[in-house]
Amino acid sequence: MDYKQIGLMVDKYELTMAQTYFKNNMLDHKTRFDYFFRKLPFQNGYLIFAGLQDLLRLLQQFRFDDQAAQFLLKDGFDADFVDYLRSFRFRGTIYSMLEGEVAFPIEPLLCVEGNLLETQIIETMVLNVLNFQSLIATKAARVRHVAGDRAVSDFGLRRAHGFGGVHASRAAVIGGCDSTSNMLAAFQYGLKAVGTMAHSFVQSFDDELTAFREYARFNPAHCILLVDTYDTLRSGLPNAIKVAKELEAEGHRLVGIRIDSGDLAYLSKKARQMLDEAGLQYVKIAVSNQLDEYVIRSLNEQQAPIDFFGVGTRLVTGQPDAALDGVYKLSALNDQPRMKISDTLIKSTLPGKKKVVRYSNGEGGFLADAIVLEEEQQIDCMYHPFEKEKHLRVSGLHQEELFIKVMEDGEIITDQKTVEEIAEFSRQRLALLPNEHKRFEYPHIYKVGISKKLMEARDAMVRQFRGED
Amino acid sequence: MDYKQIGLMVDKYELTMAQTYFKNNMLDHKTRFDYFFRKLPFQNGYLIFAGLQDLLRLLQQFRFDDQAAQFLLKDGFDADFVDYLRSFRFRGTIYSMLEGEVAFPIEPLLCVEGNLLETQIIETMVLNVLNFQSLIATKAARVRHVAGDRAVSDFGLRRAHGFGGVHASRAAVIGGCDSTSNMLAAFQYGLKAVGTMAHSFVQSFDDELTAFREYARFNPAHCILLVDTYDTLRSGLPNAIKVAKELEAEGHRLVGIRIDSGDLAYLSKKARQMLDEAGLQYVKIAVSNQLDEYVIRSLNEQQAPIDFFGVGTRLVTGQPDAALDGVYKLSALNDQPRMKISDTLIKSTLPGKKKVVRYSNGEGGFLADAIVLEEEQQIDCMYHPFEKEKHLRVSGLHQEELFIKVMEDGEIITDQKTVEEIAEFSRQRLALLPNEHKRFEYPHIYKVGISKKLMEARDAMVRQFRGED
Repeated sequence: MDYKQIGLMVDKYELTMAQTYFKNNMLDHKTRFDYFFRKLPFQNGYLIFAGLQDLLRLLQQFRFDDQAAQFLLKDGFDADFVDYLRSFRFRGTIYSMLEGEVAFPIEPLLCVEGNLLETQIIETMVLNVLNFQSLIATKAARVRHVAGDRAVSDFGLRRAHGFGGVHASRAAVIGGCDSTSNMLAAFQYGLKAVGTMAHSFVQSFDDELTAFREYARFNPAHCILLVDTYDTLRSGLPNAIKVAKELEAEGHRLVGIRIDSGDLAYLSKKARQMLDEAGLQYVKIAVSNQLDEYVIRSLNEQQAPIDFFGVGTRLVTGQPDAALDGVYKLSALNDQPRMKISDTLIKSTLPGKKKVVRYSNGEGGFLADAIVLEEEQQIDCMYHPFEKEKHLRVSGLHQEELFIKVMEDGEIITDQKTVEEIAEFSRQRLALLPNEHKRFEYPHIYKVGISKKLMEARDAMVRQFRGED
Repeated sequence: MDYKQIGLMVDKYELTMAQTYFKNNMLDHKTRFDYFFRKLPFQNGYLIFAGLQDLLRLLQQFRFDDQAAQFLLKDGFDADFVDYLRSFRFRGTIYSMLEGEVAFPIEPLLCVEGNLLETQIIETMVLNVLNFQSLIATKAARVRHVAGDRAVSDFGLRRAHGFGGVHASRAAVIGGCDSTSNMLAAFQYGLKAVGTMAHSFVQSFDDELTAFREYARFNPAHCILLVDTYDTLRSGLPNAIKVAKELEAEGHRLVGIRIDSGDLAYLSKKARQMLDEAGLQYVKIAVSNQLDEYVIRSLNEQQAPIDFFGVGTRLVTGQPDAALDGVYKLSALNDQPRMKISDTLIKSTLPGKKKVVRYSNGEGGFLADAIVLEEEQQIDCMYHPFEKEKHLRVSGLHQEELFIKVMEDGEIITDQKTVEEIAEFSRQRLALLPNEHKRFEYPHIYKVGISKKLMEARDAMVRQFRGED
């Protein structure tokens, strides 16, 4: 991630707006923007918030170099504004949930404070990084949910969206994958990398047995043999068993076999049986080929004896949704609350400086989240954001605030964590979410409410706009 | 696209295989790999082949630097192999369809020749680049199909998959978008960039009219006003009309208004009426908000008077498929044909060195494609690849070969084209595809056949493997 022109990772309108603010002497306006989403992907019951550390690093690198400046001049921007951009640095302050946190619709996940120009110009980057990584981390958490304790690896780079595949692998590990096939992501983020052989390897030798033997010869300790190039049960398995015995004779153990086509439930059972009959109970069975959480659940139901899942396309592309609808909306200008008013309350935004409070029961399980005004210390009751008559008493419950300050004046002020640490935090948090929010079909809807003060502030602004005051 | 560690953009198994070839003295083996896909995305009738120039440039840059080497050693690769990688360059030769070509399932789109190690190690990169860009170019072509002559712009960067958004915008323009909001893609690929304002801009002023006036003051010649921040018909439109009149008084013309929410058919009709009644027939109507080819078709059916479509999420993520299933398969080793044999003929590959011939009728319309052996000059008849009893006479038809040599010994040997030129070529080729292949519902299936010699070669290999010879 060392794009020299990272400042250009913007939608053009960020720059046309920025130029107008610059020319109109509006740089001293103080603003606050909220990042939030309205709809959970995959009809899931929760989101895993991911991408934060990448975003903060990119914001620190956000620059317009000489080449970018030349390009902007040619594109019609004015020389004084482009000069300003040449020395532009993001100097804002960011409050955020921790990366890996379990999050829900409507509530802010991250808030950006700074001047009007700097908070606007980073909009596209905030959305691009957080929307995508949160989508993939959430998908990975669903896969992990059905895989249980068995190994899950991201195999998706070949179907990922260009260089976005590098972010996909990072997010996949945050959400629950143990490892990735993606070497660039492993290098960049310190992930565990795995991989053995393709069908082309087997085809590159005169016969399958020779291919297996040669692979085992040079990789005796890490040998997983791909058994479906010609005929899984009649050729691949018998050859793999032969090689496993030869490895044993040399003091090694075949790690596993991989099946990449055909009926994985049927073939894995047959393979297990053949391996066991050959005394190779320790040889593991890995499978791949268009896996996702539903296929793995079905394999579970069929009691397929699988030890390792290689999950690719559907994980790294976030199928079938392929996008999280996160948005970045102005909530305060010069300390005055601002909101977007829409015909429907659901599409309106929540005005003012807010924070998120999470309520838990005695055992620590998450019960509900409340969006409250920044200055509110304690509330007794939270209200449904769109249906006023619904409310929930929260007094007496354990509460924790989910925001911490992660960037101040453009500098990262929290310790950077490894992806493994973020993943571990995410697992701990997800363990606190009751199971009924984790089922795939009609998960129980987690309650997110707003404080009375926030509700009143919003409703007053709507009335004022409609001329009802 | 200046990743210093671009050689690491591989699945780990490419490297474990490469190390085995290296240690086993198999570097002199000559291979050929074919890139092809089995299933068209979006239930579409054709694919737009995109990504070629990016791929060729990346292959020229494919390197393992010191940092990459250190990482590989730490990951367990052997020192002699890592040394070899430090000086590795891709020196292969590539035959390919032209970028922007209309392509179909089963047929090779690109073939790579070189030694076993170099042709294997680039697999992930070939797939990553071509799969994604072809997916998005195809989606864009569908959007263009329903948009007709009206302007279409890519607005998707905020929902794109990380840095993959840069490739998405390139592919979107190849497939039919006129422009993009993505400044990094515009910079990198010379695309036309467009953009005006967000809701936050309107909210950053005391009222909507002031916001519009200030924007118009600093952008008098390129002014498109976003009219749905508060109330499209009662506030946005009246304010936009006021500003349009003020611009007229200063000798300018308001370019357009944009509607980003609500019922776009209803609002665009009302807006057209209000603008026309104010004598502003020249002011164009732009719309955005979750558009795709189906929404635009529906707007067409309702005769919505829209001049400009901003298409975002569903375009750049290739919803709902989100991936093209392209694969990269060994077809020859040391000039001997190779194939992957599967239980079903459909999942088997076509062995040997092949090329693609396209047949047209007198007016130039595409009729059928044949996959033939490289040495075949002319065939009389092509056969269905999986159903032998189906065949098509092709003698007498106009024929053209679709492959040209684009890279030789690792050097690009064709002129690099601008994205605009590639897009224009693609439009010309797509114009030659009969319309029945372009409809969305059950498009007519374009015929792709194989020559008799290729069929016989394949069937002989299958028989030989099964011991029937």
